[in-house]
Amino acid sequence: MRDFLPADVRRREYVIGVIKEVYERYGFEPLETPAVENIETLLGKYGEEGNQLIYKILKRGVHEATGEADLALRYDLTVPLARVVAEYRDKLPKFFKRYQIQPVWRADRPARGRFREFYQCDVDVLGSRSMVVEAEICAAASDVLTKLGFNDFTIRLNHRRLLTALLVSAGVPDEYHEKTLIALDKLDKIGQQGVEGELREHIRAIRAMEAAITLLYFFSDLTSLESAAEVMAGEDLYDKQQALNEATIGRLIEFVGGNENGAKAIEELRFLLTLARAAGIDHRMKIDPRLARGLSYYTGTIMEISVKDLPGSLGGGGRYDELVGMFSKQDVPACGFSLGLERIIQVMTEKEMFPKTIATSSADVLIGALDEESIPDALKLARELRQIGRVDVYPDCEPKIKPLFAYAEARGIRLLIIIGSNERESNQVTLRDLSLREQQTLPIQLIVREVREKLSAG
Amino acid sequence: MRDFLPADVRRREYVIGVIKEVYERYGFEPLETPAVENIETLLGKYGEEGNQLIYKILKRGVHEATGEADLALRYDLTVPLARVVAEYRDKLPKFFKRYQIQPVWRADRPARGRFREFYQCDVDVLGSRSMVVEAEICAAASDVLTKLGFNDFTIRLNHRRLLTALLVSAGVPDEYHEKTLIALDKLDKIGQQGVEGELREHIRAIRAMEAAITLLYFFSDLTSLESAAEVMAGEDLYDKQQALNEATIGRLIEFVGGNENGAKAIEELRFLLTLARAAGIDHRMKIDPRLARGLSYYTGTIMEISVKDLPGSLGGGGRYDELVGMFSKQDVPACGFSLGLERIIQVMTEKEMFPKTIATSSADVLIGALDEESIPDALKLARELRQIGRVDVYPDCEPKIKPLFAYAEARGIRLLIIIGSNERESNQVTLRDLSLREQQTLPIQLIVREVREKLSAG
Repeated sequence: MRDFLPADVRRREYVIGVIKEVYERYGFEPLETPAVENIETLLGKYGEEGNQLIYKILKRGVHEATGEADLALRYDLTVPLARVVAEYRDKLPKFFKRYQIQPVWRADRPARGRFREFYQCDVDVLGSRSMVVEAEICAAASDVLTKLGFNDFTIRLNHRRLLTALLVSAGVPDEYHEKTLIALDKLDKIGQQGVEGELREHIRAIRAMEAAITLLYFFSDLTSLESAAEVMAGEDLYDKQQALNEATIGRLIEFVGGNENGAKAIEELRFLLTLARAAGIDHRMKIDPRLARGLSYYTGTIMEISVKDLPGSLGGGGRYDELVGMFSKQDVPACGFSLGLERIIQVMTEKEMFPKTIATSSADVLIGALDEESIPDALKLARELRQIGRVDVYPDCEPKIKPLFAYAEARGIRLLIIIGSNERESNQVTLRDLSLREQQTLPIQLIVREVREKLSAG
Repeated sequence: MRDFLPADVRRREYVIGVIKEVYERYGFEPLETPAVENIETLLGKYGEEGNQLIYKILKRGVHEATGEADLALRYDLTVPLARVVAEYRDKLPKFFKRYQIQPVWRADRPARGRFREFYQCDVDVLGSRSMVVEAEICAAASDVLTKLGFNDFTIRLNHRRLLTALLVSAGVPDEYHEKTLIALDKLDKIGQQGVEGELREHIRAIRAMEAAITLLYFFSDLTSLESAAEVMAGEDLYDKQQALNEATIGRLIEFVGGNENGAKAIEELRFLLTLARAAGIDHRMKIDPRLARGLSYYTGTIMEISVKDLPGSLGGGGRYDELVGMFSKQDVPACGFSLGLERIIQVMTEKEMFPKTIATSSADVLIGALDEESIPDALKLARELRQIGRVDVYPDCEPKIKPLFAYAEARGIRLLIIIGSNERESNQVTLRDLSLREQQTLPIQLIVREVREKLSAG
């Protein structure tokens, strides 16, 4: 777990600020839930491994000695959302569009870029089965990343029922679906031969194995389709992506053929592309039938954001129409998306994508008094200058100016105002611009105007 | 522990936003620490009762069965600050001015207005013994409350060493200091006779008891001084408060006489009043020798904010020059102030002090499509309107308008835009202003301008 010193907090708050602003523009509303949940709410929702990773809190008082836990730290934001929707259904609007940006805790082994306390940034829409939800969620996530300065990302799209239809159409029996998908997922990493080897090794039933290999060849073909589209299509990103998606859809229709669920899923994806075009994000959207995230959980569309030349993803999500039913006994369709805040901050830091002003400056002006008699004047001036900027007063009296310089530089403060007995006698102050290395002495009535000009000139 | 639904979050974020903005103006910087600390960091810092109220976290994995705890939830923001200062001393500036707004957890019995998870809003300055720190902290807290709409509050001031000097000068032996202060603290509630009764009952040593009663009479006199000042002084709040403080200081000097520590403490308070005048908050400051908060903890000035006719306080703090030494083995002087966020929100809610717009509206515009063919147009329009406001798209298709109305009203959305086949054929949209109960049909090119005008008209 980490302490966030001021520069860290400012970077995080900048990103969170952009996320909040965009989500608000899309009509999402903030929700916050407590860090601590009843242990029964969390146990059994994240699989056996998840149970192990939950931080459990001892009963208090006389029960402490029993070593029993009755509470636990929040493990994600989706289960608390489901609890809230079940608990407050009557107080919430017909469609509940919420965003939630809060820390979660997992007792993972620490590894590079992974932490035991980390923030999740979730948006979810509850109450509708319409593809409008998917389109809006993708558009919002796309807006966030664009505003943060990412310009080379793709939203990969797939559909849980399309995946099943592909497996069924290829002839892979149910019991081999998961194994096949796990192997196919490695296509980018280990190539066609590598995946074929894995399938031959892990699927002993010959027919099933051959069916899986059929699907592998189909996926490989799609990859070459992609390379062809890169070459064929012109420079226009919109045209290129659209041509590729249409070609992919054509192949998918051929492959799943008469499979009704598959055909419906393709129809949904196609409609989502139409809506994405209206929302101005069709150049981001890429149908990718190989995408297979969180299988047990999702029921419809799944999506994931990839950045060119960057391993891992910046976020992902999907439709989960049955999860809320676990708490509320009534079906509430839902679709959500989680932005990977920690990953986003990491990439932005490495690529120096943060605006320069954010993490470097703690105040605009430092006022220092050279003797105790000048302190009231320093505070008076601070009060005035705080109307136009961030002003720090050096608390101690320094007969010399050097420590004031050192402190201003250490805190990244640009303007230093010095008041001493000389200045007071002549009703003046000394203003030093540390970035320009300029110093002037000017009448105290002019200082506010001068500082305002310097700050607005940037 | 509480869930914060959207309207709750907005109220909290409004208050936190004002606090942050003011603290930034004063040159404070944000710090965030993890929710979870090592259990040894917390145990023994809050007294025996505090130890009981700390939430303790079970060891993970194979150690879970032992029932032992190695981690604990943050109990306040001051101990983590002391740990951070000890841990990162080299990375921090000479004076570390930080604000921190994060939840803390206490396993208290729940009572009205008290919660097991609640936010603390702390500012602290580390590294200086100057009264500038106290003046700036009081000015910042005063600015926050003024910006939030409080206009009838007082910052009560006292000094730990003045309190001791008063007890010594009255002749109360050390071992009765705490008992005497606890009784005197009730003067406002149970009156002079009540306190005298308590002192006679609890202090058996006659001389000590008589000395305590001498101090009681001195305090009672100060109270009557206050009433006299109310009557005597004119309407000017500045004059009134200044006259009262001067009179109080005069009495204090008489009472502590030659006690050196007492005289020094009075001198510090007097200097603080001079600085408060320069900072423009002298009308808020009230020397109150009866104020006695957190005795074991503070070493110098103590302060507390009271609002007229409101029980309890909105915040308090003081100087604690020795606490950080418990972690760092080096003396780091420090002074801090904690605003009572939960209490502030509670009072502002009861007195309806929140700006009207904050908690009632979730979006500015709702766009609804009456048929599936109109959905792309709805998304296209949403994209444009999001340049100027918060826009929600009704995800489902409703052949009738009534559900759109109901949903817009439930979410407090003022403008409703409807697109159906009629509208599309004539290239128009229907715009309904729910607050004015007006409806118009207008060409789609004009809608952005019309919405902008309506939103900026407020």
